[in-house]
Amino acid sequence: MNAEKIPDIIIGRLPVYLRALQRMADNGLKTTSSQELGEHVGISAAQIRKDISQFGEFGKQGTGYSIAYLLDKLREILKVDRIWDVALVGAGDMGHALANYPGFQNRGFCIVAIFDNSDEKIGQKIGAFVVQDADNIVESIKAANIKIAMLTVPAIAAQSVAEKLIQAGVRAILNYAPINLNVPNTVKVQYIDPATHLQRMTYYL
Amino acid sequence: MNAEKIPDIIIGRLPVYLRALQRMADNGLKTTSSQELGEHVGISAAQIRKDISQFGEFGKQGTGYSIAYLLDKLREILKVDRIWDVALVGAGDMGHALANYPGFQNRGFCIVAIFDNSDEKIGQKIGAFVVQDADNIVESIKAANIKIAMLTVPAIAAQSVAEKLIQAGVRAILNYAPINLNVPNTVKVQYIDPATHLQRMTYYL
Repeated sequence: MNAEKIPDIIIGRLPVYLRALQRMADNGLKTTSSQELGEHVGISAAQIRKDISQFGEFGKQGTGYSIAYLLDKLREILKVDRIWDVALVGAGDMGHALANYPGFQNRGFCIVAIFDNSDEKIGQKIGAFVVQDADNIVESIKAANIKIAMLTVPAIAAQSVAEKLIQAGVRAILNYAPINLNVPNTVKVQYIDPATHLQRMTYYL
Repeated sequence: MNAEKIPDIIIGRLPVYLRALQRMADNGLKTTSSQELGEHVGISAAQIRKDISQFGEFGKQGTGYSIAYLLDKLREILKVDRIWDVALVGAGDMGHALANYPGFQNRGFCIVAIFDNSDEKIGQKIGAFVVQDADNIVESIKAANIKIAMLTVPAIAAQSVAEKLIQAGVRAILNYAPINLNVPNTVKVQYIDPATHLQRMTYYL
């Protein structure tokens, strides 16, 4: 298993398999097949077998996959067999929704710090957190050794905040600001922009 | 230009070009090059030229692209040269954030109806909207001829709500529920799940 050799597109599908397998486990299922998993995720059984086989032999011909075993392996591969501390920058509506989002639980992530630059928001409580002054991003994130951040600031502020995060040691940014970030290739960025996602569908209407 | 012939992966990049070009226009720029656009979106100039050339000849050798012209063409191709009415189902934290999200403005979308099934939320005001009873989804959406919906309900409810939306005539769903939807192939679904996006990055950390 070599990080350089697995295409990004395969890595991108593993969290989707993981999510579906977790749901099967929650529903009390013990084993599954590439066929059944494929129906849950809308991907062909052949593609699933091929993707999973990149990492070793996890299934048995005829008996399928042990869900618990495959869950363990996928979590290990994706490095979510641990809990990652996550910083959230931007305490607006989207920041609030993420701070209160129950879906990070059991999926490897825990928001541990929230920052904003507005005097109105600094000191405010969101759930268990007190919003911190964005001026302290670099020292706070460095001190807490946080490697992952979510960015829900306005587009105009996103690049400069991203640079501070990277300076503080962040290596993965989930960017909700509707703008592309220029980052060194040692830093990963994923983008969530609902308007962009909607525009990917209107073409077909 | 034939909808059947353009690969989905190219269509998926067009909204990113559109967003960057819109930002350039907002900043007062009149022309750009595939090189410059590429730097903004993190995609090679060659790929951009190839993607855009699928739809015709929009640039001139040596003088580049007229931003206004390319914006018009991309909006026309993506069918966001109009405003699409959008229904929002789920008035929780994420639903609130989307209802208040300023980023749909000028990008082709307008939320026109919000639904929830909780007695506490039905009748509540979110911005200019009164949350409607989810029992009325089918008739309301049919009557308003809405083709696009955003789904921010819990995973367990998502499939049944999606089926109601499709029955009402919805053909594109932006799904925030952390579960895959089974839909006919006449319906498009895009997924936003922050935990999945984060898990696509931890592999590389």
